[in-house]
Amino acid sequence: MSSVPKRYEGKAKIIYPTDEPDIFLAHFKDDATAFNALKRGQIQRKGEVNCRISALLFEYLETQGIVTHYLEQTAPNQMRIRAVEIIPLEVVVRNVAAGSLCRQTGLPEGKELPAPLVEFYLKDDDLGDPLLTRDRALLLELVTPEQLEQLKDRALEIDRHLQELFAECGILLVDFKLEFGFDRDRQLRLADEISPDTCRLWNQAESDPQKRVMDKDRFRRDLGQIEAAYQQVLQRVEAVMTQKEMTH
Amino acid sequence: MSSVPKRYEGKAKIIYPTDEPDIFLAHFKDDATAFNALKRGQIQRKGEVNCRISALLFEYLETQGIVTHYLEQTAPNQMRIRAVEIIPLEVVVRNVAAGSLCRQTGLPEGKELPAPLVEFYLKDDDLGDPLLTRDRALLLELVTPEQLEQLKDRALEIDRHLQELFAECGILLVDFKLEFGFDRDRQLRLADEISPDTCRLWNQAESDPQKRVMDKDRFRRDLGQIEAAYQQVLQRVEAVMTQKEMTH
Repeated sequence: MSSVPKRYEGKAKIIYPTDEPDIFLAHFKDDATAFNALKRGQIQRKGEVNCRISALLFEYLETQGIVTHYLEQTAPNQMRIRAVEIIPLEVVVRNVAAGSLCRQTGLPEGKELPAPLVEFYLKDDDLGDPLLTRDRALLLELVTPEQLEQLKDRALEIDRHLQELFAECGILLVDFKLEFGFDRDRQLRLADEISPDTCRLWNQAESDPQKRVMDKDRFRRDLGQIEAAYQQVLQRVEAVMTQKEMTH
Repeated sequence: MSSVPKRYEGKAKIIYPTDEPDIFLAHFKDDATAFNALKRGQIQRKGEVNCRISALLFEYLETQGIVTHYLEQTAPNQMRIRAVEIIPLEVVVRNVAAGSLCRQTGLPEGKELPAPLVEFYLKDDDLGDPLLTRDRALLLELVTPEQLEQLKDRALEIDRHLQELFAECGILLVDFKLEFGFDRDRQLRLADEISPDTCRLWNQAESDPQKRVMDKDRFRRDLGQIEAAYQQVLQRVEAVMTQKEMTH
């Protein structure tokens, strides 16, 4: 691996090229960052856990007709993915008020939203990933109005599937961040990862606002037992997915 | 005046009640604040200058069919206004990129926008007047979808009239903030003020990015000669309005 030049290193993953021009390898790191990388740390085995959760969720979504960049898992912390040109927008879906939505609007954390909220943020660390209105997203010419609608519809569809799956896991899908890209044929594909790093996941059996947290907020808010929470998410998703395959 | 209880004191104005329940007096202060009141100061004669500019612009807009809260000027720094219930949204219209739009999107200052941009901000000092997406504005139940459309249309109409007027003054209307309210009959009225405190105004004869500034950015950015710039805006608006009345 060391002789292959790195293609791209992000905060949580390294993307390596392969012999095939349209195929890359995504290597999931144990590094954890929060607050636009002002807070840094490591979460033991996070790379493996997030890679496995993402692989399972991509596989599940593919069975539901969602086109993703995922091909197969090639190592505990590595997956083969299809090359896509990433759209520099973070697409956030919110089912329950939490995080920046609460800080910026005064809505109480935990308030169920009347309908899922799809929001777009500019993927730009230097600018602090700012919230974009529809007009601002179009003004920046990152996507066409049609593509913006397509992203919104796709995000809502993914939300429906993931909410259902996580409900079977006894987990409330509070909100999550998606990234999309276009492949060589200009087909829109879900990319990046879906993991406790990119989702807010609350244990439905817990009402305590600290104990229920099963996601990166444990790291952001120094709640401890981060590894155990991530492991717990994986175990539950794995169990539900195994059950689905057996009944299939 | 001192025996009349204050109704409401804001950062730039004090609103006093009168004997008539639907009529208030707006007293314009010399106090200047910026960055959500983290920066404070005084601009000499600002109260008088902003009151006069606002009065002239409200009068002009009324002749163009825009319904406002303005009734008449009663003193150099005081006007009679109709009581309205203020909608807690700041409606910002942008013709040219500047300020937070540039900081948050990376667009260069001075870039002309392909079409005027109407944005909504939550009027909430504690939250720092955050930008609202359409969905967030509706989620907060501050306005109905129909009212939001009405606000947007009204703001664009006001922008057309003000751009035209300021162009006659040799001033580029970069952006401005409006506030609206509903009167007793639930009629939407333009409220608050329109002044160098609430508009970005650039002298069209100047290309120097500091010299051209004729608005509160001189205070925000310590550019000096604040009083002279505000006076200059008043003189030009007064001259154009006098000319309009004479030809009328």
